[in-house]
Amino acid sequence: MLVNRRQIEIEWGDCDAAGIVYYPRYFAYMDACTAHLIEAATGLKQIGWTKKYGVIGIPMVDTGARFIVPAAYGDILDFETRAIEIKRSSFRVEHKIYKAGVLAIEAHEVRVWAGVDPDNPGRIKGYTIPDEVVSALSAG
Amino acid sequence: MLVNRRQIEIEWGDCDAAGIVYYPRYFAYMDACTAHLIEAATGLKQIGWTKKYGVIGIPMVDTGARFIVPAAYGDILDFETRAIEIKRSSFRVEHKIYKAGVLAIEAHEVRVWAGVDPDNPGRIKGYTIPDEVVSALSAG
Amino acid sequence: MLVNRRQIEIEWGDCDAAGIVYYPRYFAYMDACTAHLIEAATGLKQIGWTKKYGVIGIPMVDTGARFIVPAAYGDILDFETRAIEIKRSSFRVEHKIYKAGVLAIEAHEVRVWAGVDPDNPGRIKGYTIPDEVVSALSAG
Amino acid sequence: MLVNRRQIEIEWGDCDAAGIVYYPRYFAYMDACTAHLIEAATGLKQIGWTKKYGVIGIPMVDTGARFIVPAAYGDILDFETRAIEIKRSSFRVEHKIYKAGVLAIEAHEVRVWAGVDPDNPGRIKGYTIPDEVVSALSAG
Repeated sequence: MLVNRRQIEIEWGDCDAAGIVYYPRYFAYMDACTAHLIEAATGLKQIGWTKKYGVIGIPMVDTGARFIVPAAYGDILDFETRAIEIKRSSFRVEHKIYKAGVLAIEAHEVRVWAGVDPDNPGRIKGYTIPDEVVSALSAG
Repeated sequence: MLVNRRQIEIEWGDCDAAGIVYYPRYFAYMDACTAHLIEAATGLKQIGWTKKYGVIGIPMVDTGARFIVPAAYGDILDFETRAIEIKRSSFRVEHKIYKAGVLAIEAHEVRVWAGVDPDNPGRIKGYTIPDEVVSALSAG
Repeated sequence: MLVNRRQIEIEWGDCDAAGIVYYPRYFAYMDACTAHLIEAATGLKQIGWTKKYGVIGIPMVDTGARFIVPAAYGDILDFETRAIEIKRSSFRVEHKIYKAGVLAIEAHEVRVWAGVDPDNPGRIKGYTIPDEVVSALSAG
Repeated sequence: MLVNRRQIEIEWGDCDAAGIVYYPRYFAYMDACTAHLIEAATGLKQIGWTKKYGVIGIPMVDTGARFIVPAAYGDILDFETRAIEIKRSSFRVEHKIYKAGVLAIEAHEVRVWAGVDPDNPGRIKGYTIPDEVVSALSAG
């Protein structure tokens, strides 16, 4: 499976008044990690792959996280992101976040490969994920 | 059960480049809703109830959300927040977010009622949630 | 002059590890206040007035703030926002933020009333601010 | 003068519904850049230098930015940060942000080197910036 690895240093502004990472920030970081995974799989930035495949993006349907070890300002975290299950028009992403080699957070996402609904242009619908994207996400 | 209701108008800065709410923002809004629920149950701001009960706060252990209906700039959302399960030192929060009366997001949180670990001052541990807080969260 | 008044309660997530408001959050709040000022002046949400006047929005050209009194979790701040100078295609906004009646922050913005440049569709340019918008911002 | 250089890639979540960077995010990035400048000057993380020098941090007194060239998702920006003026207990920071070599944003900050006021423990006051920190910020 293709794995996106990313090292992120916790900034002062990521922390709340208790001095630990304000957890909504993790979702922002994970969103960026998923974006980078798709970029790695397509070889294109989002502006490129949405154009190439005629879709609008990968809206979130479901996400969740378990917070095991807290992190604070100055900590360096290692994010590992992979698509662990790929269906026709949706896929499940898993994030594992490590602090000094210890699993600190475990999270999942379900995303839809979505485009404009031709029967209803004001709405979106799931499109079939292209074979080459499935292959790239599954490879390695 | 005590219910905290809150109406939030989506601001421009809550939205991403696709024009819909950037989902990490929902977690920030829900965090504030849970804070307001505890304030309603204790009659005190967090600075007050942490002092009164000798704890440091209610760190997040697990959270997740299902996104059913998207929301955009200018939408007005109704947040309903309640503690649906209360254990000795942790509790489960449920958020239901409505857009024009339709359920748009369903989310949960598991929080710990946490204080300094007396055996290990650099760490925290779960404390017993005070009876009066349990009663207030369960009432109504 | 039209004044937009807004009361905002500081949430836990607005604060940094020092326990005071993480100042980039003030800029987000002020951005929302300016949006509400324009809504008050036009009687329309941004999606409405950008359509009506054929523009794309009011991008920021210059902003700054002086932080006089710090604010923390649970504080309630009163934001006062007005357009203190209106030129052909730009305007200057002033924010005064009070904590318990005391001026806590003073800020300014310069915004452009901007639309697509007809000579260069990939770019934007300043448009003449409509007389009725100028009147509404100046009235009262 | 010591210069902190940092390359930041604009993430999806940094952008607003107009597709360009939501400007409060620049202030968050610049805050992190200033933190890194002080770390470079002291050779310590903030948790280290605040302890070493008996201060609580460098609260913001005044900040402002001029936005010259917009940036969007996927753009790579180069931040250059330096202390251009150092007084007894405050200093002025300048940020220059480049996009593809072109100056995109110019910003300033005035920060105070602050600790607890011994005459009034609930408040803070400016402390004299240590000579070695002044030297390190001025060097090079």
